[in-house]
Amino acid sequence: MAQPQQDQHKAQLSDLEIAQAHRIRPIQEVAEAAGIPDSALLPFGRDKAKLSAGYLGDLQPRPDGRLILVTAITPTPAGEGKTTTTIGLGDGLNALGHRTVIALREPSLGPCFGVKGGATGGGYAQVVPMEEINLHFTGDLHAIGAANNLLAAMVDNHLYWGNALDLDPQRITWRRCMDINDRALRGIVLGLGGPTGGTPRESGFDITVASEVMAVFCLAADSADLQARLGRMVVGRSRDKRFVTAAELQAEGAMAALLATAIQPNLVQTLEGNPALVHGGPFANIAHGCNSLIATRAALKMADFTVTEAGFGADLGAEKFFDIKCRMGGLAPDAAVVVATIRALKMHGGLARDELGREDVAALERGFANLARHVANVRKYGVPVVVAINRFSGDSEAERRRLRELCEGEGVEAIESDHWARGGAGATDLARRVAELAGSGQSAFKPLYPDAMPLEDKLRTLAREIYGAADIALEPAAARMLAELQEAGFGGLPVCVAKTQSSLSADPALKGAPTGHVVPVREVRLSAGAGFVVAICGTIMTMPGLPRHPAAERIGLGADGRITGLS
Amino acid sequence: MAQPQQDQHKAQLSDLEIAQAHRIRPIQEVAEAAGIPDSALLPFGRDKAKLSAGYLGDLQPRPDGRLILVTAITPTPAGEGKTTTTIGLGDGLNALGHRTVIALREPSLGPCFGVKGGATGGGYAQVVPMEEINLHFTGDLHAIGAANNLLAAMVDNHLYWGNALDLDPQRITWRRCMDINDRALRGIVLGLGGPTGGTPRESGFDITVASEVMAVFCLAADSADLQARLGRMVVGRSRDKRFVTAAELQAEGAMAALLATAIQPNLVQTLEGNPALVHGGPFANIAHGCNSLIATRAALKMADFTVTEAGFGADLGAEKFFDIKCRMGGLAPDAAVVVATIRALKMHGGLARDELGREDVAALERGFANLARHVANVRKYGVPVVVAINRFSGDSEAERRRLRELCEGEGVEAIESDHWARGGAGATDLARRVAELAGSGQSAFKPLYPDAMPLEDKLRTLAREIYGAADIALEPAAARMLAELQEAGFGGLPVCVAKTQSSLSADPALKGAPTGHVVPVREVRLSAGAGFVVAICGTIMTMPGLPRHPAAERIGLGADGRITGLS
Repeated sequence: MAQPQQDQHKAQLSDLEIAQAHRIRPIQEVAEAAGIPDSALLPFGRDKAKLSAGYLGDLQPRPDGRLILVTAITPTPAGEGKTTTTIGLGDGLNALGHRTVIALREPSLGPCFGVKGGATGGGYAQVVPMEEINLHFTGDLHAIGAANNLLAAMVDNHLYWGNALDLDPQRITWRRCMDINDRALRGIVLGLGGPTGGTPRESGFDITVASEVMAVFCLAADSADLQARLGRMVVGRSRDKRFVTAAELQAEGAMAALLATAIQPNLVQTLEGNPALVHGGPFANIAHGCNSLIATRAALKMADFTVTEAGFGADLGAEKFFDIKCRMGGLAPDAAVVVATIRALKMHGGLARDELGREDVAALERGFANLARHVANVRKYGVPVVVAINRFSGDSEAERRRLRELCEGEGVEAIESDHWARGGAGATDLARRVAELAGSGQSAFKPLYPDAMPLEDKLRTLAREIYGAADIALEPAAARMLAELQEAGFGGLPVCVAKTQSSLSADPALKGAPTGHVVPVREVRLSAGAGFVVAICGTIMTMPGLPRHPAAERIGLGADGRITGLS
Repeated sequence: MAQPQQDQHKAQLSDLEIAQAHRIRPIQEVAEAAGIPDSALLPFGRDKAKLSAGYLGDLQPRPDGRLILVTAITPTPAGEGKTTTTIGLGDGLNALGHRTVIALREPSLGPCFGVKGGATGGGYAQVVPMEEINLHFTGDLHAIGAANNLLAAMVDNHLYWGNALDLDPQRITWRRCMDINDRALRGIVLGLGGPTGGTPRESGFDITVASEVMAVFCLAADSADLQARLGRMVVGRSRDKRFVTAAELQAEGAMAALLATAIQPNLVQTLEGNPALVHGGPFANIAHGCNSLIATRAALKMADFTVTEAGFGADLGAEKFFDIKCRMGGLAPDAAVVVATIRALKMHGGLARDELGREDVAALERGFANLARHVANVRKYGVPVVVAINRFSGDSEAERRRLRELCEGEGVEAIESDHWARGGAGATDLARRVAELAGSGQSAFKPLYPDAMPLEDKLRTLAREIYGAADIALEPAAARMLAELQEAGFGGLPVCVAKTQSSLSADPALKGAPTGHVVPVREVRLSAGAGFVVAICGTIMTMPGLPRHPAAERIGLGADGRITGLS
C-alpha cells in the first residue's frame, strides 16, 4: 500500500520512483543466495520466477523454520504499514544474518487503478519489480479469474442445454469475477437477447480476489488437493435444495488445468535483494486474507525464519490466519508482531485525520485500548507477541515514551521500527527481539475453538473472545442456513466472518476497543471448496467502485517504455 | 486447430500427446540459433520468451527479408489446415537452409474449452509448448481483456460521477470482454442494485479477441503508437451525437501501461525447434485477423523468409492482410500460398461431411471453383501465388491428379504437402517452390482500393472484386452511418467486412464460387483506434457459446502435474 507521506524531511520520491531507481538483481542471483537451485526456477522475465513443483517436493524432508505473523491494530486512514513492516522485518532479520524469507499476498490489479494503490510495501521497504507485481505479475489473478468464469459459463451452459441437474436459476450463487473495480457489474441481469442468449436471471460480478477460487487456491496443499477442492465448490442449489457442486458440472479438471502454473509460488526480492514469496491474495472479509499455504510451507522449508502477514487488523487477519490457515495447514506460528502507529492510535482515540499533526498524548492513551485488545487477542492463541511501532517523523518524544509505557503496562514490549525510511537497517531492533521470541520455544499455539464446536457457537465464541461483543444476533435467514449447514454435515468447518475492518465490532464507527455490542449476522454462505462457512455481519462490498478521479487517469507509459504514475 | 484425423494409418496420438512427447529446446537455444542475443529475451518459463523493445530497435537498420502469406479456400468442417501449413512451410524452408521465422496469431483461451480446440497447428506441424500457448501463454490476452475492461469501468464510472462529457447511456458502444465462451453474457443489463450500482443500461460482453483493443494491439507500430491508438478509440456518443473517445476519459495511459509487456512479441518454437513469433490474434470478421504488426516486422528483420497467416478464407483473411495490415504497416508481400484440401473442395462441390471418404472427382471439379476464385482474388493484389494441397490419407490418385490439372488450367502450380504427418520433411517441395516465387521479384503488391475512395465505394469494390457479388445493399442505418463517417473525416480509412467465413458471399449456405449475389450491409461501426470502418453483413457472433458437452469436461490435471485432454 502506498504509505501516507511518512517523513516530510526526506526527498519526495514516490514508491515507484524509489523502486525504479533501485538495481534489481537477476532472480537467479536472489535464488542462489537463498540456496534455491537454478533448475527450481520457472523464470518470468529477469526478476520474477515461479518455484517448480519438483523443487517443492524436494524440500519436504527439511525441517521447518520459525513462523512469524505480522498483524496490526484496527486499520485507520492514517495507515499502519503492515506490509511495509513485514518487508522491513524480513530485511532486518537477513541483515542480522538470519536466513529469512517473507511470504506476502499478491496485489489485486483493480485497486491500482482506483485509490488504494499497489500492495508491495512502501518507502525503502518494498518488494520489486513494484509495477509488475502490482499489475499482471505472473498472471495468477488472471488464471484465477479465468477458472472462476469458466465455471460460471459452464453453469449457464448447463441451464441452456436442458439443466439435467435441475439447478434452480434463482438459487445459483456462483458469480462471475473481474480484477477491475467496476461497480456497474455488482448487479446485472444476464442471459438476455432471446433464445440464443441463455436463461435470463439476476447475477453479478465480484472482484477476483473475492472469488472462492482464490480462497481455494490459497488453502490447497498441492495440485491434487486444488482440483479436489475446486470440485467441492458449491455453485447453487437444485429445485429440491440440494447443494450442486462444480464436480457435478465436470468443471474442476479444466479449472485446475487453468491454475496449473499459477499454483506454483512466485519468487521476487525486496529492495535489499532478499527473497520474497508473493503468492495468492484472498479478501480478508469474505475469505481468510493470507497468502497461499503452498508459499508459506515452502518458505518454512527454505529459511530459518518466515515472516508473513494477514489482511486488515488482527481481529480479522490474525484470527483467520490462526483459525483457518494454521488449522487447515497444520502450521504452528512461533511469534506474532502487532503493528501500530502513533498516528493511527490517536485516531482510535478520537482525533480526525487533519488533527494528527499535533502532539496529543491523551488521545494516544485513549486509542491504546485498541492495540491492547489486539495484543490480548493474539495471546489467546498461545503465541508470544511483540508490538512494532512503525515510525512517522511527526511522532513526538512524549508520545513515543508514553506508548512504550502503556505497552509495558500490558506486559508487551514495544519496539520502534524505521524500515520505511531506512530499510532493514531501520528494523534491526525489532528483528533482534522477534528472533529471540520466535526462537524461545514459548509458543503453545492452539486455535480458538475446536472443530467439533457447532457453527453457531463458533460464531459466538469469536464475537465474545475476539470482538469483545456481548453476543451475536442471527437474522432468521442466517439462523436457518446455519442450521441447514450443521445438518448437512458442514458443522466441522471453521467460520470466516465478513465484517468491517474499521472496527473490532461490526460497526465501522466504533473505534478503540468497544465492548458489550452485539454482532448482527445477516447472511451465511458456504465455501465448501475453501472449507469454511462465511458469516456476513453488516454490509460487505465484494466489488469496489472507482473514485471520481481514478488513479488510472494519472498512469501512463513513458517514452522509455517505463510505467509512470503508479502509486 | 485440432485437425480432423488426417491419417488413419498413423498411431492415434493426439496433438497434445505428440507435443508432450517432444523434447522442447530451451528458448535460449532457439534464440541463439536464430541469431537473437540472450539479452534480447524476456523469458517466460524455460520455453517461451518475449523479445525486448530494445532488441526490436536494434533490428531496425537491417534489410527486410521476404514475406509470404498463407491463406486458404473458404473454410468447411472438413478442415483446411492453414496454421498447420504455415508451420510446415516454415519448417520446410528451414530444412532447406533458408533462415525462416513464422509469425502466427496467438490462440484465444475460450475456444479451447468449447469445441474448436487450440490453435497451435496439429500433427507434426505444431508450435510448442502447445498447452501453454493455448491456455495463458505469456498473458497477452489477459492484458488485453484488462485494458478493455478498465476502459469500460471508466465509462460507467464517468456516468456515475456526473457525466461531464454528456455521454448518452443508450449510445455507449464500448462493451466488456472475457476470454471465455459465455453466451449468457452476450446481452446483459448492468448497473442494477440501486444508487450505488451505477446507471442501469443494456450492454454485453464480447470474447476478448473481438475487442478493438486486440485490433489496436495488432496494428500498433510501437508503444507510443499503441497509446495514441487506444486514445482514439470511440466508446460511444454524446447526447449531441459527438464521438467520445478513450482519451477524453484519460484512459489510454493506464491501458497502455497494462499492455506494456504484452506488446513485446512472443518467441516460441516449432516441434522442429525453429523460431516462431506468436503474437496477437484478432477476430477475422469484426477485425482484421492477423498477428501483430510488431511481430511481422520483427520477423522480417530477423530472417530471410517470414511465413505468416491470416484468418479464415482468403476473401476475409488475405483481403484484410493486404488492404488493412499491409497498407497500414507498409508491408509488401512477396508471395502467397492458398491452402486447400481435396476433402474440403469436395464439400464445396456439394458432398456432405460423411460422404468425404469416397472418391468423387466430379464433386472435386465442382468445388474447385472456390479455390480458383481465391487464387484469382489474390492475384488482384499483384502477389504471385501457389496452391498448397494439404494431404489427407483418403485423397485418391485420381482426385490428386485431377486437382493438379485443374490448377494448371488456372495457371497456378499446385503442390502437395505432407507436413501434418512428416513435419518440415513433408513440406520441402512446397518450400522450394515458395522460396523461388518469393525470391523471384515478381511481386508488385498494391492494395485493392486507394485510401481516397469513399467508404461506400470501397465496400462495393470489395463485394464485386472479391466476393463476386453484383452489388451491396445498405440498410438505412448503415447508409446513414457511412455518410456520417464520411462527413466526420473517417472516409480515408479502409473498410473491414464482418461476414460469414463459410461462403464467399454473405450467405453461409452458398458454397463454391457464387456470383450475382447481393451483400447486405446491416450495420456500420467505427474502430477509430484500429483505424478501420467495420461493415457488418449478416449475423456476426462476437461471443461464442459452449456446446452441450464442452471440451472443458474432458480437460484435467494429471498426477504428474501435466495437463490432459486438451485438443
